[in-house]
Amino acid sequence: MTLKLFRRAHIFTPETGVAPTFGGAQGDIPEIVDGCILVRDGRVAAVGAGEKIEKNIAGRSTDVDMEIDLGGAAVIPGFVDPHTHACFAARREGEFSMRLAGKPYLEILKAGGGILSSVRAVRAASEGELFRFSKALLETTLHYGTTTIEVKSGYGLDTENELKMLGVIDRLRRETPQSVVPTFMGAHAVPEEYGGKPDEYVRLLLDEMLPAVRDQGVARFCDVFCEDGVFSVEQSRKILNGARELGLKPKIHADEVNDLGGAALAGELRATSAEHLLAASDAGISALADGGVVAVLLPATAYSLKKSFARARTMIDRGVPVALATDLNPGSCFCASMPFVFSLAVMGMNMTPAEALTGATLNSAWAIGMEKEVGSLEPGKWADFVVLDGESPAALAYASGTRPILSVWKRGEKVA
Amino acid sequence: MTLKLFRRAHIFTPETGVAPTFGGAQGDIPEIVDGCILVRDGRVAAVGAGEKIEKNIAGRSTDVDMEIDLGGAAVIPGFVDPHTHACFAARREGEFSMRLAGKPYLEILKAGGGILSSVRAVRAASEGELFRFSKALLETTLHYGTTTIEVKSGYGLDTENELKMLGVIDRLRRETPQSVVPTFMGAHAVPEEYGGKPDEYVRLLLDEMLPAVRDQGVARFCDVFCEDGVFSVEQSRKILNGARELGLKPKIHADEVNDLGGAALAGELRATSAEHLLAASDAGISALADGGVVAVLLPATAYSLKKSFARARTMIDRGVPVALATDLNPGSCFCASMPFVFSLAVMGMNMTPAEALTGATLNSAWAIGMEKEVGSLEPGKWADFVVLDGESPAALAYASGTRPILSVWKRGEKVA
Repeated sequence: MTLKLFRRAHIFTPETGVAPTFGGAQGDIPEIVDGCILVRDGRVAAVGAGEKIEKNIAGRSTDVDMEIDLGGAAVIPGFVDPHTHACFAARREGEFSMRLAGKPYLEILKAGGGILSSVRAVRAASEGELFRFSKALLETTLHYGTTTIEVKSGYGLDTENELKMLGVIDRLRRETPQSVVPTFMGAHAVPEEYGGKPDEYVRLLLDEMLPAVRDQGVARFCDVFCEDGVFSVEQSRKILNGARELGLKPKIHADEVNDLGGAALAGELRATSAEHLLAASDAGISALADGGVVAVLLPATAYSLKKSFARARTMIDRGVPVALATDLNPGSCFCASMPFVFSLAVMGMNMTPAEALTGATLNSAWAIGMEKEVGSLEPGKWADFVVLDGESPAALAYASGTRPILSVWKRGEKVA
Repeated sequence: MTLKLFRRAHIFTPETGVAPTFGGAQGDIPEIVDGCILVRDGRVAAVGAGEKIEKNIAGRSTDVDMEIDLGGAAVIPGFVDPHTHACFAARREGEFSMRLAGKPYLEILKAGGGILSSVRAVRAASEGELFRFSKALLETTLHYGTTTIEVKSGYGLDTENELKMLGVIDRLRRETPQSVVPTFMGAHAVPEEYGGKPDEYVRLLLDEMLPAVRDQGVARFCDVFCEDGVFSVEQSRKILNGARELGLKPKIHADEVNDLGGAALAGELRATSAEHLLAASDAGISALADGGVVAVLLPATAYSLKKSFARARTMIDRGVPVALATDLNPGSCFCASMPFVFSLAVMGMNMTPAEALTGATLNSAWAIGMEKEVGSLEPGKWADFVVLDGESPAALAYASGTRPILSVWKRGEKVA
């Protein structure tokens, strides 16, 4: 048993509530000015006022193996990034420059660019190449404070390459310090070889890919890109219901470009989360609230696509738990920084720093089924936290565009 | 003599034109795919296609002391940040949180917060304290690729403390790797002891402070905050004319909050630069074009204040040379990253990557009278450059919110 005592921490952490409010009221962040975190074998044993915890330790004559003085800096839970496509084989900077010059995304997609160029690169890459490229991406996210990360497949789009991707994501889970949550996203796009035959591809997904993914035993979630020109609401419903029967919980890319009714479907299916939601209607937002669905918002994607942000305030006001994610991917959003996402949430979506903090930690843990393990500094959870170069979580927006982080800790170990 | 050869550089640099277009057409960036930079004693001796430069060297049997292989990465001139207040003694995170909660800036100013709280901190700080705090700020800017930086006084607001600040800025110039350009900004605000008596403070500026600043011999420019509740157009004109008589070139914080006619004054005075310009009118923009004034835009400040960006496109279209700066200061914009400013220019102000690059290098060199020394990779200038983690300058926006930089070089030496 190893016992570590982190002293002089100015702790800001959301606290676990119960569904459907999830991480408590989104705006409510207790603050512990001169706090301690006691860590036993990588998990939080106690957290609270320093004086009280130190007295308890003294009373029990427990031996603390190591004391770490955090110097009064602001401490927040490690970021939980609940939506990334951080398993790929090549960047797409050239396409980004084209987009800056005015070419719309769906047009790039139709021209065989977009997702499909990443599919070609992933299919051509060996498992080792894919692993090395993706590991470097995860290292960058860790540098920016992400201690738990969801990673989706979805650049394979055939059974062999989807399993290859999930295998690589599983290896990332084993060989990086981060907690990695794998999601199967065979329904990320219709592959070139099924052009014009999306229903046939849906059949392949249901009859062959999903059972193979279940047998592989890596993926925890199934995600679908429900959008004009990708998968319809009806196709998405079929895929997610099929996945659920095989034990994969549903997530859904909903109403990113057009209001197709993806949010309503997420509510109907009581999906774990609905993502993007730039175009979600009032009815869609109500469906999320009614279905207990976490809204995973990706403001860096809106920024990178020069679009309006999702209506975070409306969602919060209607009782939808809002989570924040990077969407790290080679096309629409090559952003590895949760501090930047936090900044955009506060400056662009008018979330309060407390709401953004809950969104980037506890609510995002809920969005990937990790709420019992991570997302807040509470006894029993992993001791994952970020020491900020600042007085409060607002420092992440105060120092927008930089990295106001002094250190990153995963399971009580310094990792960045 | 030391001769260094940087090989396999994918070079993007603006080229020096002539006034009034300054750095050539703002959108025109030559690109050298397999380029070399030959550096003699810290200055560019030659730059161009690798083959040609290597052949020239071979022909002259010159001894190259060191060869550095840049691996084909994109190389741009070191960033020139032409507008900062990076000499201060304390952050103002608490005020930032207040602002997020809705308190307007001019109200904070009137309540004795804002600039005046920084004045109290700077007056209370020793020269050594002020130097150490500011040096750390400059190190962060260097980490983000800034190799030349303007730093303003303006938190002293009395003769003694303004000279103290300029002394510290001069020490930064001597003791950091960066080129530091000092600006006197005693007219940053009316100090508390002159509350309600701005004309008396203007008299102090003209009769005592400016002559003392001239005698000290550090400042190259004089800047004025021309704004409602700060200095009127008439007061600003007096101060800048007085400064010019003493050899200090005029700069002006113009039309940041309200369209007071600051841009028109800049044009009338043929100031070196006009800054902020969020509220500049069409007439003001025309005055800048007519007066050959560089517009120094500060998009990170607009972002941090949740304001609309300056009208960069209109300015460029009307022939105003647009430069970009961080505005690094403890209040309205605690941003040390020129890559973030570049990103906002492209994503928020719809500048092209080429325009943003010229704005962050050559045009910003013009904005602080450094166009003969830095701002482009051309023979005779300092060999200041940034090696990007990417294919082109667009990588700075592609990887928004992070630091897509492999290395930073000042006078041919690796500094970050």
